[in-house]
Amino acid sequence: MSSPAVAFARQNQPRFLSELKALLRIPSISTLPEHKADCRRAAEMLSAELKRIGMENVRILETEGHPLVYADWLQATATPTVLCYGHYDVQPTDPLEEWLSPPFEPEERNGNLYARGAVDDKGQVWAQVKALESLLAEQGKLPINVRVLFEGEEEVGGEGIAKYVASKPPELKADFALVSDTELFAPGLPTLCVGLRGMIYTEIEVRGAKTDLHSGMYGGAAPNPFMALAQILARLKDENGHILIPGFYDDIIPPSPEELSAWRNLPFDEEHYRITEVGSKQLVGEEGYSVLERTWARPTLEVHGMPGGFIGAGAKTVIPAKAVAKVSMRLVPGMTPQKAFEQYSSFVKKIAPAGVDMEVRLIHSGDPCLIRVDNPYIKAATRALHEVWGRETVFIRSGGSIPIVGDFWRHLGLPSVMMGFGLPDDNIHAPNEKFNIRNFELGIESLIRFLEETAR
Amino acid sequence: MSSPAVAFARQNQPRFLSELKALLRIPSISTLPEHKADCRRAAEMLSAELKRIGMENVRILETEGHPLVYADWLQATATPTVLCYGHYDVQPTDPLEEWLSPPFEPEERNGNLYARGAVDDKGQVWAQVKALESLLAEQGKLPINVRVLFEGEEEVGGEGIAKYVASKPPELKADFALVSDTELFAPGLPTLCVGLRGMIYTEIEVRGAKTDLHSGMYGGAAPNPFMALAQILARLKDENGHILIPGFYDDIIPPSPEELSAWRNLPFDEEHYRITEVGSKQLVGEEGYSVLERTWARPTLEVHGMPGGFIGAGAKTVIPAKAVAKVSMRLVPGMTPQKAFEQYSSFVKKIAPAGVDMEVRLIHSGDPCLIRVDNPYIKAATRALHEVWGRETVFIRSGGSIPIVGDFWRHLGLPSVMMGFGLPDDNIHAPNEKFNIRNFELGIESLIRFLEETAR
Repeated sequence: MSSPAVAFARQNQPRFLSELKALLRIPSISTLPEHKADCRRAAEMLSAELKRIGMENVRILETEGHPLVYADWLQATATPTVLCYGHYDVQPTDPLEEWLSPPFEPEERNGNLYARGAVDDKGQVWAQVKALESLLAEQGKLPINVRVLFEGEEEVGGEGIAKYVASKPPELKADFALVSDTELFAPGLPTLCVGLRGMIYTEIEVRGAKTDLHSGMYGGAAPNPFMALAQILARLKDENGHILIPGFYDDIIPPSPEELSAWRNLPFDEEHYRITEVGSKQLVGEEGYSVLERTWARPTLEVHGMPGGFIGAGAKTVIPAKAVAKVSMRLVPGMTPQKAFEQYSSFVKKIAPAGVDMEVRLIHSGDPCLIRVDNPYIKAATRALHEVWGRETVFIRSGGSIPIVGDFWRHLGLPSVMMGFGLPDDNIHAPNEKFNIRNFELGIESLIRFLEETAR
Repeated sequence: MSSPAVAFARQNQPRFLSELKALLRIPSISTLPEHKADCRRAAEMLSAELKRIGMENVRILETEGHPLVYADWLQATATPTVLCYGHYDVQPTDPLEEWLSPPFEPEERNGNLYARGAVDDKGQVWAQVKALESLLAEQGKLPINVRVLFEGEEEVGGEGIAKYVASKPPELKADFALVSDTELFAPGLPTLCVGLRGMIYTEIEVRGAKTDLHSGMYGGAAPNPFMALAQILARLKDENGHILIPGFYDDIIPPSPEELSAWRNLPFDEEHYRITEVGSKQLVGEEGYSVLERTWARPTLEVHGMPGGFIGAGAKTVIPAKAVAKVSMRLVPGMTPQKAFEQYSSFVKKIAPAGVDMEVRLIHSGDPCLIRVDNPYIKAATRALHEVWGRETVFIRSGGSIPIVGDFWRHLGLPSVMMGFGLPDDNIHAPNEKFNIRNFELGIESLIRFLEETAR
């Protein structure tokens, strides 16, 4: 590890950490209108720093929501171009009383830095900026061409960046994307996320009577939209977690035997996961599939809420005129949102009980994504991580979605390298969010070595 | 119809109507704390009028909520004692913008008196008071012993009167109750309600994970409380409206062939009911039972709301830690709330899917009720109604519950005569509530003649 840039980073680590704390003090909560100016302050701090370290064409791009930050450095020849992505906005802080130190007053405890946004995603954004600074400071140039695009709406849907990416601007022309918003599978275990589930998020609205009715007067003759929804939902997924929509599983591309074998070697204990993460009396799901397969490589169908009727305390005897089920399905490689929604909505309409009208709405959708591990950028990342962490890199998937990864692929043709340095217990979106300080350091070194390796 | 009291009522009808309007101008909305003083004003107006017309022992009885009004006249010998019941509180008025005239400014239109509380129940309470006045004014005495008990919490659960009745005070010693809070089956058709469904109102709470989880990360392995509830509910009632709880129908006492035959002769058209009252594309329920049987003489199981999870606009991908279904069952004669709840809760626990914990709670309950039509008070009512309306009385049931009727029976041993003069389209609990003015007049005459007939 003879990189001078890594040496620079090590020498300047205390300053890097101190600067990160300054960024964390800005309460850039994207979902709360009263923090709109804070979001802009965070964007401005990032653009000022990108200018200071020597990036070019630095600018703030307006959106209908919070602004994007763009920068580039394109003086390398005959090398690939990377698009670095992260987000400067953070989740709200409630319940505030559960924080051991105030969320916007960063505090070091036990080798961790505690603050809202520490790991999701300001710490990882700052690691990217500090890797670029180390390379520019030590060598006056970058090993490859670099574009940077930070957003401030990741926690509220990312509409601004999605529109911008979909417009395919020349500023985003690149060969691959570097997305720093993920985590290690376990402490000290270098990890690349190479697969994401897609999704369709839907609503089923069932209407019975023309108005709310009294269940004493009409119960037994008037259709009950909640009962109709229960009957529909119970026919969508059986008690073994198997989805009953005809053809739903037909196009799934299963993980390769090598990938499944690698997953079996991951340090993962289902009972420990049940107790510490889920806390239910038992886990559920499809027989014959491990928990990692169920959550990474199998589709699921979940109900998130059922608006309508009476939800207060006590007893109101209403047969509501309508009720809604908010239902989403996670999709895996081989499936498409369009086909999944067609299969789902036509089946739901087919099994609708008598007496009710129904509407099935698609609220939003995202493609599943699978990165080939034999692409040169993943290979470069693997080499860099091995060198920095001293262990073989594991390739994992995530059961969730990172919409921007799908957007980068669909609109710009960019495969993403999802290299992140969080830990599973970092409390993202929860009180006492933290970033392990050693992971912040090794993250910067990993990013430096990764960019250097991609130039080879 | 040579009753001098009836003649008195006819002569004084304009005054009676004018007095009723004064009562209707008091916005005695029991559910809104800001109308607490108005409820008391309504109680005071009633007690003052009861005193004025010659009732004795008139007093306002305090409860933890709105007060009761008591009065009696017990100078008749060797005759039965009636307990007259009604309520002076009214429903809220929203949506206010749909009222054609302000809810607390009574207005006559097309032979109807429009105001909140016109028929439910101030108009019917006033009819009782005016019947008593007519009898006392013309004859200086009442044909039988009379006790009066008006409440001001019927629209909010009737807790005060329920406690008072349960204490079995000597003031409520009587032979039967006269409950004036029901309606005619059709215009001009004298009607006695002789059966009410009982009910149990419950909550099923299902808990899966220890905290809300992200459906991307955990979907497929963590239990989903809404899906568990859907599976449970779908197994409680089939798509033909048949309740699947073992033993649930075992103890039902079906209506007699005579009662069923009488129901078939009622002016009731299922298609008209579907279109004008329910408005669904078809009616639902048990095959082989008419709509009147389904709603009057068969139990039902209804879902009223399903609190929990995410019910806002848009897409939040949460697997909620818990969800609740608010489920009630209407019970018919032969069934008891206790046994029904035992059957229901043990079945629900038995069919609970794996992975979840569950609690089944009883929120409240009420007994079903069936009045024998051969009791002398029902016979007297039938004679009086026939005389006043010129048609045979029909005996109907109601699918709803009138808890006080059960309380009068259980605690005081009183059968109730449910004689009311509303119409099915009187918009109770809705904008533009009305009372047909001719029904108000004939109601007073019917009550006079009923009391006279019970003395025979």
